[in-house]
Parts: sequence; C-alpha cells; structure tokens
Amino acid sequence: MTDTVLISEVGPRDGLQSIQATMPTAAKRAWIDALYAAGLREIEVASFVPARLLPQMADAAEVVRHALTKPGLTVMALVPNLRGAEAALAAGVHKLTLPVSASEAHSLANVRKSRADMVEELRHVVRLRDAHAPQVKVEAGLSTAFGCTLQGVVPDDDVVRLAAAVVEAGVDEAGLSDTTGMANPAQVRRLFTRVRAEIGPRTGAAHMHNTRGLGLANCLAAFDVGVRTFDSSQGGLGGCPFAPGASGNVVTEDLVFMFEAMGVHTGVDLPRLMAAREPLRRGLPGEPLYGMTPEAGLPKGFVAATV
Amino acid sequence: MTDTVLISEVGPRDGLQSIQATMPTAAKRAWIDALYAAGLREIEVASFVPARLLPQMADAAEVVRHALTKPGLTVMALVPNLRGAEAALAAGVHKLTLPVSASEAHSLANVRKSRADMVEELRHVVRLRDAHAPQVKVEAGLSTAFGCTLQGVVPDDDVVRLAAAVVEAGVDEAGLSDTTGMANPAQVRRLFTRVRAEIGPRTGAAHMHNTRGLGLANCLAAFDVGVRTFDSSQGGLGGCPFAPGASGNVVTEDLVFMFEAMGVHTGVDLPRLMAAREPLRRGLPGEPLYGMTPEAGLPKGFVAATV
Repeated sequence: MTDTVLISEVGPRDGLQSIQATMPTAAKRAWIDALYAAGLREIEVASFVPARLLPQMADAAEVVRHALTKPGLTVMALVPNLRGAEAALAAGVHKLTLPVSASEAHSLANVRKSRADMVEELRHVVRLRDAHAPQVKVEAGLSTAFGCTLQGVVPDDDVVRLAAAVVEAGVDEAGLSDTTGMANPAQVRRLFTRVRAEIGPRTGAAHMHNTRGLGLANCLAAFDVGVRTFDSSQGGLGGCPFAPGASGNVVTEDLVFMFEAMGVHTGVDLPRLMAAREPLRRGLPGEPLYGMTPEAGLPKGFVAATV
Repeated sequence: MTDTVLISEVGPRDGLQSIQATMPTAAKRAWIDALYAAGLREIEVASFVPARLLPQMADAAEVVRHALTKPGLTVMALVPNLRGAEAALAAGVHKLTLPVSASEAHSLANVRKSRADMVEELRHVVRLRDAHAPQVKVEAGLSTAFGCTLQGVVPDDDVVRLAAAVVEAGVDEAGLSDTTGMANPAQVRRLFTRVRAEIGPRTGAAHMHNTRGLGLANCLAAFDVGVRTFDSSQGGLGGCPFAPGASGNVVTEDLVFMFEAMGVHTGVDLPRLMAAREPLRRGLPGEPLYGMTPEAGLPKGFVAATV
C-alpha cells in the first residue's frame, strides 16, 4: 500500500510576504496556475492583513478569487486575527490558518498578545466561521513550537498544553511550526507523538524550516511518526534566508523529490513543479531561488511514486 | 543511555582532491590540527595516487606523518589499488579505504576494472596488510551503492552480493556510498538493513552526498537502522558542487549539529568545529564553503550531547 502525503504550498503567502519586492497580481496568478498544474492541491495564497502593514498582500481577495477557479484546490489564507478572518471568509477561502506562538516571549513580541489572548482570538474566529461559513476549516499553526530566538528552549509541555487549548477553542487542526529553525529530528518525533496523544487526528501539518540544514530530516522524522501534511515553499522562498544557500522554508522541490523517491505519493509532478519556477522567477526578477533538486535534475532511472 | 556516533572527516582527502586548487602542505597541517582540536578522531587525510594524476595529493606521505602525531586520531587514507596501499602502509596509516563500485558501468568507466577485478585487488591489499601491518584496518567503500549516473538504478542484490564478496576478500568493514546523490531515506534503511543481515558488524560507514538536499535525511535514516559511522566534509568541500548552495559531501558542521541537537554524542565541539573553517579558508582562498549551521550559528539555549 502506497503512503500518501499532502504538500501544502505556502510560497504565495509565506514566501511573498517575507521579501521586499511585491509580486504583481498577474504574476501571482500565473505562478499559482503553474503550481496547480504541477499537482499541488493545497496552496496558502495570501495573508489578510492591513495593506499598509504588508503591501505585498494588498491584493489578497483578488488572488483568492483567482485560486477559487481551480477545481479541487484547497485555497488557504493566513489571518492574524478576527478582522483578517472576516475578510478572508468574505473572499471565500476554504481554510484559514492562524499562527499562535508556543513561546510567550515570541507571542508578546510578535503580535503584542499573550498566548491566552491569542487562544481567545481563535475562539472568536471559530465562532465567526461557525455562524457564517461552517464548511471552512480553521487551522492553528503553533509557531516557535521547537524553540524561540527570544526565550530559547520552549518546553514540550507548553506546546502540548497549547495544542489542547486551541482544539478546545474549536480548531479543526493544530500544526507545529519550526519558525526559528531550531528543531531536530528526535524532538520532532517526540513532540508530534505527544501532541497526537493529546489531540489525536486534529494533529496538523509539519511546517519546518531549513535554517540549519535539517529541514528535510525533520520532515522525515515527522513522517515517521505519522504526519501526512507538510508545508513547504517553492524555491525555499520566505522564512528567513540570511546567507547564500540558506533557505528559510523547506524547498518544495526537494521535499517532493524526497517523498516520491521513497515511493510516497505526493500527487505532484516533479518536471512540472520545476517548470513552475519560471513564472515565479519572472514575477520576482533577481530574487534568489533555492533548491538542490532543480539544480541537479532528477536522477537517471527516477520513477515517481504511484498510488 | 546516550547514543554515540563516529564522524569520519573526509575533507582533507575527498574535499581537497575534488577541487582545482592545491592546498599547501603547511595549510593542510593547520587544518588537520584544527579538526583534531574540534574533537574529530577519524580523518581521511590523503589519497595515495600518482602525483601526476592528482597533484593535490602529492604530499600524502608528509600529511600522514603529521596526522600521526595526534594521540587517539585514526589516520585514514584512500588507496585505489595495491600500489597505493604499499605507499600508504609505508607512510604508517592506521586505516585504508578502497572504493569498489557497485555499478559495473561505473567501475569500468572510473577505474577501468570490473567489480570482480576490484575485489581481487582488494584481496591483494588485504594480503599485503596481513603480511606487513596486521594492525591496520581495511575498509571497502561501496560506491554508487544507491544509483549510478551511467546505468541508473543499481539493484539492491548487487550491493548485498558485493558486500559479501569484499568481506570474503578480508576487509574489516564495508560502507555504502551515495556517490551520485541518488539515495533516498527509504532506500538507505532498506539497503543498510539488508547489508547488515548479510555481513553483520562488518557493516561500515554511511557516506552520503547532499546533491539533491537529502544528505542529512539520509544520514538520519542510516542512524535509524543502526549505522554509527558517518563520513562528511567540513564546509561540504568535495563531492560535486555544481551550484550555489549545492554541496556534494554532507557538511560536517550540519551533521554534527543534527546529532548533538538530538542528544547523540559525536565528541565534536561545535564552536571549535566552526573555528576550523578559518584555517580551511586561509588554505583555499576563494573556494566556496557550504553549511547552514555556520551561517545561522547555534540556537539560543543549545546544549551539546553528553556521554
């Protein structure tokens, strides 16, 4: 029996909001078209935040409208709060994701709210969803779950408790994010196992970073303990690239190659995925794109996984 | 109980012989000093090949002599044949490694010998060792074990059969090398498990490449099935770097970080290991060095593994 994973492409949101340049709306459409053509079936296409804070995302509603024309595509958006959720639901997204820091220090520094206040915000988002769009899924992304640049170690207990709290607040899924690139495979296995013991099938995606080169090893570790949804970004766009060859987000091309080579079905066609770098490049001239597999090409004799 | 792994540093051999520039002997000594000071206790310091073929290794005997002054260091050298083994034993190495291709096509193209002929060569090397230096260890590195750029897929059966043949020829260890960067974690687990079933404790190191970004994931996979020796290269030097950010060999710094973060003891001190990049850089001005952990630094709150 072939294993199957869902690759959730976050480039159009996480990638594009992390860089200086703003990709024109037409270029975003062309890139999303290419990602969809490659077989990606969940794409985080936008953030619903005030345009004065994040001009790169000013066209969020328009991008969502375009993505909604793709049959079978789950159209996701990030929302930081209730106001963002209202806008995202009005635009018609299928799934909302809301980041909640596992580190109190990061939460206060990043959104000027305590973790408890963020769980309350989430509760309001869930109520809004229940009242106006019950078919929409709500995910909490537990950021800094594996460590925090401010407070250092984030205790496992804090993450498990927060996972329970967001589920109690009504989310459909809670994923774990290695926001700071501090995770290691042993920790990934331990923490996902503990979270699953706490919240069962509501355990969501692994969102890993490649800050210290461990992105794919951490995805493998998560896969080993039953995770089947993985966030990644084409060309490793976004996260926090601070050096040549360093990418923040796990590179979708390399992640898909790893799984397909292992015989794990992703539904993504690698040659088409590599081809999707072209519209990305055209939309962001001069922006560095990462990824080893696109440079090396597929190995001789490579066979993609079959269902 | 803490797990322990042996990191076998191959940079002074595999790294230096793969690049155009020749590092001066004094610089090699300084680099090896720094690697030793960081805690590395097995270093492949040279290739014993004719200087006209590989001028970078013309000072092999002198480099070995220097490395032999370090207490507790296992001084390794690569030898392609009996003649190289004679020279390496005369120089006083502790351990010889001889590459044997699992792919017949690669073997013929690379050393103009069939696999069977290479096993015969190995038998002569073992006899020489038995007669003149019985304390010296002989390792066979089974190259192209995970795939070949010429023939594509290398059947598992070929690798297992070759492992049995080199053990029958008298080697102490047979390691598996992903020469071409084609390995994936599922294959690494399957093949090391099969080889161990065939040759037991003579199963040697995992020599992984990062060609498609899977280097650390493949090392993790090998660790999971009991491998405890890993080849890597400081700064990812060597292998086949064909693009910015692409390294051939697994980067020692990232590999050590992964294991230490997991609580697996390597005996290597990370700050000192990062410091060893300086003599490497001075000895090879302008040569690109890879590695994410050196760029990102150690995470806040990082604690190294203890025995």
